[in-house]
Amino acid sequence: MSFAPLQNDTFLRACWRLSTPHTPVWLMRQAGRYLPEYRATRAQAGSFMGLATNTDYATEVTLQPLERYPLDAAILFSDILTVPDAMGLGLSFAMGEGPRFASPVRDEAAVKALRVPDLNKLKYVFDAVTSIRRALNGRVPLIGFSGSPWTLACYMVEGAGSDDYRLVKTMLYSRPDLMHHLLAINADAVAVYLNAQIDAGAQAVMIFDSWGGVLADGAFQAFSLAYTARVLAQLKREHDGTKIPRIVFTKGGGLWLSQMQSLDCEVLGLDWTVNLAQARALVGSTHALQGNLDPNVLFAPPQQVAAEARKVLEAFGAPHRGDGPGVGHIFNLGHGISQHTPPEHVTALVEAVHSHSRQMRL
Amino acid sequence: MSFAPLQNDTFLRACWRLSTPHTPVWLMRQAGRYLPEYRATRAQAGSFMGLATNTDYATEVTLQPLERYPLDAAILFSDILTVPDAMGLGLSFAMGEGPRFASPVRDEAAVKALRVPDLNKLKYVFDAVTSIRRALNGRVPLIGFSGSPWTLACYMVEGAGSDDYRLVKTMLYSRPDLMHHLLAINADAVAVYLNAQIDAGAQAVMIFDSWGGVLADGAFQAFSLAYTARVLAQLKREHDGTKIPRIVFTKGGGLWLSQMQSLDCEVLGLDWTVNLAQARALVGSTHALQGNLDPNVLFAPPQQVAAEARKVLEAFGAPHRGDGPGVGHIFNLGHGISQHTPPEHVTALVEAVHSHSRQMRL
Repeated sequence: MSFAPLQNDTFLRACWRLSTPHTPVWLMRQAGRYLPEYRATRAQAGSFMGLATNTDYATEVTLQPLERYPLDAAILFSDILTVPDAMGLGLSFAMGEGPRFASPVRDEAAVKALRVPDLNKLKYVFDAVTSIRRALNGRVPLIGFSGSPWTLACYMVEGAGSDDYRLVKTMLYSRPDLMHHLLAINADAVAVYLNAQIDAGAQAVMIFDSWGGVLADGAFQAFSLAYTARVLAQLKREHDGTKIPRIVFTKGGGLWLSQMQSLDCEVLGLDWTVNLAQARALVGSTHALQGNLDPNVLFAPPQQVAAEARKVLEAFGAPHRGDGPGVGHIFNLGHGISQHTPPEHVTALVEAVHSHSRQMRL
Repeated sequence: MSFAPLQNDTFLRACWRLSTPHTPVWLMRQAGRYLPEYRATRAQAGSFMGLATNTDYATEVTLQPLERYPLDAAILFSDILTVPDAMGLGLSFAMGEGPRFASPVRDEAAVKALRVPDLNKLKYVFDAVTSIRRALNGRVPLIGFSGSPWTLACYMVEGAGSDDYRLVKTMLYSRPDLMHHLLAINADAVAVYLNAQIDAGAQAVMIFDSWGGVLADGAFQAFSLAYTARVLAQLKREHDGTKIPRIVFTKGGGLWLSQMQSLDCEVLGLDWTVNLAQARALVGSTHALQGNLDPNVLFAPPQQVAAEARKVLEAFGAPHRGDGPGVGHIFNLGHGISQHTPPEHVTALVEAVHSHSRQMRL
């Protein structure tokens, strides 16, 4: 496949800790329910999975936020749970609820029956990646993604979201052998899945360890970090002669940042609880940082949104100048954007990030 | 009032970082739904508030876990939200749901109408404290408690539990002046409330900052930590010639531990994400530490429960020996015990903490 040349490489340059004319910005879940045009397309598609599995719809909604805002990256419209769905667990999204699996994995027989899925079952994802990359026509880079092995395990065992992670942690503490077996399969499946996204045209990949932060110290390292590392060890480093940066985001992982520095990836995502200046001092010479505005800031009036965005930029501090790698900052939220966000507040956010970060470079 | 002399002072000694023959242990929410005898009393009382506001019932359920387990402290049976209830917000607990306020505080008029409540409206709490202290008859010390100003504000604005804290954070970012006004009233109310518990017989007090960890770095310091400090500054240091230790627990606050060291209190509570050895190295010379087993460990078989309890004790490390203050560890969970916990697993936990911590002192 050959695609149009890239016109805006600020996001990729920041991943590699190279200087940029402004701080690149994109938002987790930027193609989503807060946009009326998304809700219209989703209504046509009938269901979330109907949207995600249709190449045209997935392409359309991925590009919607780019039509409104001068964002510096696009992210594949999909879900973090496509891999266990392809394993046969039966993913669905009931209206107004989160994801649910028809066949959760709760005993030894269910764990031992798990296999790395046939990639043909995920062809809709790779088709969407290629279609989106074509439609982007070089405007900005396209990010592919997956849930982390541990985060997938949470949903696979719980069968849905949870507020206490009782079932998955019961398995972890009662049968660590089973949990390790499950996580190894998840890691190998996530690796082939992300590699296929890279082959299809993804220019960067991100691992969402959305639930790593619910683990105890010690358990995080053994059951989340180790398996994220196992994914990273299997990922393609380049495609078509271009290097592919890899982002790892552990929500609630701020306490383990120095251990995450050992991950063989280019970018570490941070939630809003982390002090960006401290994080930069700790890991900024080896990893670019992505984050970390509280999404709830977007409910404040636009001038407060802009002020809080400037605070995040100033917390990261002086931008990298000159040639060669230094430090890198990619502006983002510390979690997905809320469905209740007023779209015009996002306009104020992106404008503030671009204009203030340019001023910081004068 | 005069009460029977204390027979087991290991908890209080650990608060003051004095040596103890074993590591004291108690469990957040130790009087609760996981105990069949609690469920029986609650059924008699008809409702949660019926239980909490009746002196005899509150005394009975506070003592229930002490009849089963050799715990080293008792904690008043009550709720963290009694103060806003007394402010007139109308607290209720629907069956199977969390707390709910009939009159949430969502605009300037509602915030400006708030006052430190008349303590007579909380007389049922102080009566329960005195009754429990009498019933304990010196077996173990009694801990009084309140929610932190910020945690109360979360419930007061949201009107119930929340998974995104959208309303309270919207107020925080849109109208920081209103949020500061609300928090100042909460802080002053919590202070008089805890002082009255001390007068009634509480031998230690704990501030539960259950939702401090949802705040962004910067916002935590300004909107949670500052108002916890405002409470502490107003608390009585001693009663009837005995010093009263003060415990602050911020769930999800591990990243801010060095800033919490500035708090004028004796004990800092930690959740399970914190590395106890690192926490001890950071703040162990000024504050005792309380925690930090993941409550989900209690779903594993008893021998795994015991093994994980030993890990927590070993993570804290060598106990303090000799005279004068050194380091202090109070074993606890990193959050309230789950209603689904098998009671016999708690037996294994308490036994393991006592026996292993005695061995560590040989």
